[in-house]
Amino acid sequence: MNQFGNYFRLSIYGESHGVAVGIIIDGVPSGIELVEDDFLTDLSRRKSGPIGTTKRIEEDLPIFISGVFNGRTTGAPLHIQFKNKDIRSEDYKNLKFTPRPGHADFTALRKYNGYNDPRGGGHFSGRLTLPLVAAGVIAKKIVKQIKIVASILEIGGMTDFEKAIDHAIQQNDSIGGIIECVSSDVPIGWGEPFFNSVESLISHLIFSIPAIKGIEFGVGFIAAKMNGSQHNDAIESIDGRTKTNNSGGINGGITNGNELVFRVVVKPTSSIGKIQNTLNFENSKIEALEIIGRHDVCIALRVPVVVEAVTAIALAEFYLTQKVQN
Amino acid sequence: MNQFGNYFRLSIYGESHGVAVGIIIDGVPSGIELVEDDFLTDLSRRKSGPIGTTKRIEEDLPIFISGVFNGRTTGAPLHIQFKNKDIRSEDYKNLKFTPRPGHADFTALRKYNGYNDPRGGGHFSGRLTLPLVAAGVIAKKIVKQIKIVASILEIGGMTDFEKAIDHAIQQNDSIGGIIECVSSDVPIGWGEPFFNSVESLISHLIFSIPAIKGIEFGVGFIAAKMNGSQHNDAIESIDGRTKTNNSGGINGGITNGNELVFRVVVKPTSSIGKIQNTLNFENSKIEALEIIGRHDVCIALRVPVVVEAVTAIALAEFYLTQKVQN
Amino acid sequence: MNQFGNYFRLSIYGESHGVAVGIIIDGVPSGIELVEDDFLTDLSRRKSGPIGTTKRIEEDLPIFISGVFNGRTTGAPLHIQFKNKDIRSEDYKNLKFTPRPGHADFTALRKYNGYNDPRGGGHFSGRLTLPLVAAGVIAKKIVKQIKIVASILEIGGMTDFEKAIDHAIQQNDSIGGIIECVSSDVPIGWGEPFFNSVESLISHLIFSIPAIKGIEFGVGFIAAKMNGSQHNDAIESIDGRTKTNNSGGINGGITNGNELVFRVVVKPTSSIGKIQNTLNFENSKIEALEIIGRHDVCIALRVPVVVEAVTAIALAEFYLTQKVQN
Amino acid sequence: MNQFGNYFRLSIYGESHGVAVGIIIDGVPSGIELVEDDFLTDLSRRKSGPIGTTKRIEEDLPIFISGVFNGRTTGAPLHIQFKNKDIRSEDYKNLKFTPRPGHADFTALRKYNGYNDPRGGGHFSGRLTLPLVAAGVIAKKIVKQIKIVASILEIGGMTDFEKAIDHAIQQNDSIGGIIECVSSDVPIGWGEPFFNSVESLISHLIFSIPAIKGIEFGVGFIAAKMNGSQHNDAIESIDGRTKTNNSGGINGGITNGNELVFRVVVKPTSSIGKIQNTLNFENSKIEALEIIGRHDVCIALRVPVVVEAVTAIALAEFYLTQKVQN
Repeated sequence: MNQFGNYFRLSIYGESHGVAVGIIIDGVPSGIELVEDDFLTDLSRRKSGPIGTTKRIEEDLPIFISGVFNGRTTGAPLHIQFKNKDIRSEDYKNLKFTPRPGHADFTALRKYNGYNDPRGGGHFSGRLTLPLVAAGVIAKKIVKQIKIVASILEIGGMTDFEKAIDHAIQQNDSIGGIIECVSSDVPIGWGEPFFNSVESLISHLIFSIPAIKGIEFGVGFIAAKMNGSQHNDAIESIDGRTKTNNSGGINGGITNGNELVFRVVVKPTSSIGKIQNTLNFENSKIEALEIIGRHDVCIALRVPVVVEAVTAIALAEFYLTQKVQN
Repeated sequence: MNQFGNYFRLSIYGESHGVAVGIIIDGVPSGIELVEDDFLTDLSRRKSGPIGTTKRIEEDLPIFISGVFNGRTTGAPLHIQFKNKDIRSEDYKNLKFTPRPGHADFTALRKYNGYNDPRGGGHFSGRLTLPLVAAGVIAKKIVKQIKIVASILEIGGMTDFEKAIDHAIQQNDSIGGIIECVSSDVPIGWGEPFFNSVESLISHLIFSIPAIKGIEFGVGFIAAKMNGSQHNDAIESIDGRTKTNNSGGINGGITNGNELVFRVVVKPTSSIGKIQNTLNFENSKIEALEIIGRHDVCIALRVPVVVEAVTAIALAEFYLTQKVQN
Repeated sequence: MNQFGNYFRLSIYGESHGVAVGIIIDGVPSGIELVEDDFLTDLSRRKSGPIGTTKRIEEDLPIFISGVFNGRTTGAPLHIQFKNKDIRSEDYKNLKFTPRPGHADFTALRKYNGYNDPRGGGHFSGRLTLPLVAAGVIAKKIVKQIKIVASILEIGGMTDFEKAIDHAIQQNDSIGGIIECVSSDVPIGWGEPFFNSVESLISHLIFSIPAIKGIEFGVGFIAAKMNGSQHNDAIESIDGRTKTNNSGGINGGITNGNELVFRVVVKPTSSIGKIQNTLNFENSKIEALEIIGRHDVCIALRVPVVVEAVTAIALAEFYLTQKVQN
Repeated sequence: MNQFGNYFRLSIYGESHGVAVGIIIDGVPSGIELVEDDFLTDLSRRKSGPIGTTKRIEEDLPIFISGVFNGRTTGAPLHIQFKNKDIRSEDYKNLKFTPRPGHADFTALRKYNGYNDPRGGGHFSGRLTLPLVAAGVIAKKIVKQIKIVASILEIGGMTDFEKAIDHAIQQNDSIGGIIECVSSDVPIGWGEPFFNSVESLISHLIFSIPAIKGIEFGVGFIAAKMNGSQHNDAIESIDGRTKTNNSGGINGGITNGNELVFRVVVKPTSSIGKIQNTLNFENSKIEALEIIGRHDVCIALRVPVVVEAVTAIALAEFYLTQKVQN
């Protein structure tokens, strides 16, 4: 099921080397001002280019296929599409029988009985984060009172990002990182006890972003070493503001009015220049694999805007849910 | 929305001090052998009693309200109910206007405009994990070829659990812990690329368990400090077995046939014996709060079986999904 | 899937001769006044008793299992249960291998591979309309500005109901009927173009009522013989009031502010006193079947309140949907 | 919500005069052979051209945007798009403030607060049946063992269709009709008791087809005048074959192995050449309206293939559901 949401409904589609990737968003209220330019900032933040990111260049221009008329949303399904242009499928010719370590090549092949589109990872490509970012732009408009900021805390274990990148490039290798997302001015009372806690929906979406392998809210894993008297955030004001924010702004799965804080870990990019061993499924022999495709040394550099996007999507879902309940 | 699942559908209900808690499971295939005794082991693992857990004793006997006939599931909605018996609501009398730090008292009050049932946390009670464990028993029967084992790695930062508990009791405080869940013999190809990766569904369910604040798959947050050449798990055999398992058995959100491994952090129990400060919403004054109710010094001790249950639920969902796709 | 609704979510359960039947409603706003007495009128309208209806007498008292506190809805899942009391399972002993003509005995047996509960039709019993009526009571409170009235137009082809019943009883047979439902003061703009038109959701629910085999909106099947110039309802006032109401208050699947009108046909009760032939699946022989159970000569007499209930449920769903969109 | 289905999931989008219309189908098993030519027969049956149908000519060529690779489905979301080409929006310029009687012009305007795309009915256009037919082609491949045939019984109250059309054209008016759909070789046991009976899902989809105002299964409304002893279909063979088929192949909402039979009524096309009165919402005056656009004298002529399509979609949903349950 490649859909998400109950009130703010996403249907994502597309393959890395297909005609296009895109997303249909159902449940967008009518009358929201929307033009292509609204996407430029976030799309450019996701875009490749800077050192340490893939050389694949796409124009990445959003096309409104439906749901927008005279610069406003109509209330009908909003369909945003991105054409695929710069494609070099031959780069991937050799991957069908020699799956790339750390990739979905093998699992996708098995899941779909060999019928999946293997070119560039097909539907499993990081390119699918493009429609996610687009959906995030819409979601941010719906919860515009909330300020959502995701930023990189460290990459390759360092806080000097340029140095970390240089080091990785020298090694012809890749590195991961940690990203923190802070949302301010989140209303009190969003989220559902079972099964749609704020943590549940955010993590559900976060793990739709390729390469993310962990998430923690508030102080996260540190909580395992704290006492209750240290971890409990004491309420100080009638609006729920707490002295500390160890819970990351969530109690019982519901927002408490404080900053909504979580961190995610991005694994090092699976595609590396270094030659690796893998199994050749034609001859069952271990052989050396060289990945020719263009890839990111540190995908984490491009992930913050995607993290913001899925956070906004989760918050839009909660916002619309609250409208029903009140 | 207090429901989960598309193929293995859960509808949970109940309040800590209401008539009963329970769950309806829709989508259970007919003909599965099922008797009350099948629940005893897992329910007793969740049950209170051992040092460091609440003194509240419930019989916790599962009652089949529907969906079972002559010792087998019928294919109709399976409804399992647990009556509430040992209730001391007066313990909670004072909590409506003096929310317990770290609890849902304040958020629930605001979310439901003051109409929520505050007794014992109402719908936000840990008692709701009882129907979760029951659903897990059904799920385990559906994916019986898979071995799911969750165990405690540490509590209160220690591996000597008895010592950690004693220490917390002396301090009249509470502690958290870290739990690891390992699933063996998981078939290859389970999980969906967007938005229902294995990580997405497991984390969605995991964060329905009160007190869990973080989850990481495979090596998790360590990945942020690794290179791709270290993190990539090289495939060694035709059945997808890899040399290492840094990915925790998941590539591109899909199971790869290796052990499915994740860890979660359980925060220290919010309810502690120690007197804490909180805001009195009647007079807007900060005042000392003493929590009289019976509570766990370390809820983490009771969580492993719940973690297993939600893991089984996610795997049952994937199993049924695969049946549709093949 | 025994669930319905996206905003006003129903999970129904129970068997005719099991412990209980009931329904969980998720998405009920908090703070709605609700006591058992609110159900009496509608439940008594559905209840058996009058000539032409089964002699099976149930107290049919609704029990709030969860979601109600101090006489108001809490916002948590609302669970209403009805215990089964007056059960004579032996009446149905002989039905497993000699399916009753017109019943689900055969289809249920095959669908569930023989594991279904056959007693009294099990999950297929008309008794399941009891929780539907209960859900309707809640739904009516949510759309209280709307007046929903369902009434019988004819039974057994006659408008003199007593006469029709007498006639059927003399023949030891059963009869059907036609019911019309008219909803007044329905706001403009409810319903969704694809796939949740007003007709779609109402018919979806209507066909969950046992014995209903057809539905038509406005002039319905007569439209096949009309010209467009006759069928088109001309708008006469700024509030959308039309001169005629051939469309039954719906244009393009959306309410237009006029009366919402539809009719349904209820087939004659399948269980009749008359001896019928059926196939014995043990010996593959056609044999005479006598149905001993207690049944309605004309189930249509009890259906209007159920039709009102599902109409209210559909309208509640649309009402909550509109709250999201505006 | 412009989505349908739980296992065979449709997301429809597009406006009559927008860039394109299309549909994303999620849940299509991988490996199904699929080429553009597979759509030609059904699309041409829906296509305009014959006497009595609109002069608007579209190439209506299906474009696979995603989910197809090397002539087979991949298991990823299948996206089929149809570009809009022959557009004359000016024809509709005058309709925003003078809603066409019998159309969604008024209801759409009010539902979306005036932000809907009014050109050609926007999202409410009959053109949206194009993606429905395309989805039907996929569905038919999934339930290929079933033969689904929809045919016209009468139009304008006549069985001589040419005569009926001529008559309507002379009157510069439009006519409706009745369509019957018969599905053969439907397996036993498809459908769900609550709330997804065969009648529920088929009617839900049928009422997504513009202009349909009623549906009846088996003998339908005639049942109101029959006795149970007449209406009950006696089982004659071990495979469930019945002597009569008054139930239309459905008992208790579940297929019984006999022919699945239903009829629908198509209202006369709302857009007629004849001048009609309507309210001008700018000046609140009743005025004469002349509809210039190109329209069908009898839309019913083009509906059978759409009826087949939605029937196939419902059956595909049930087929996939059964795979989960067994």
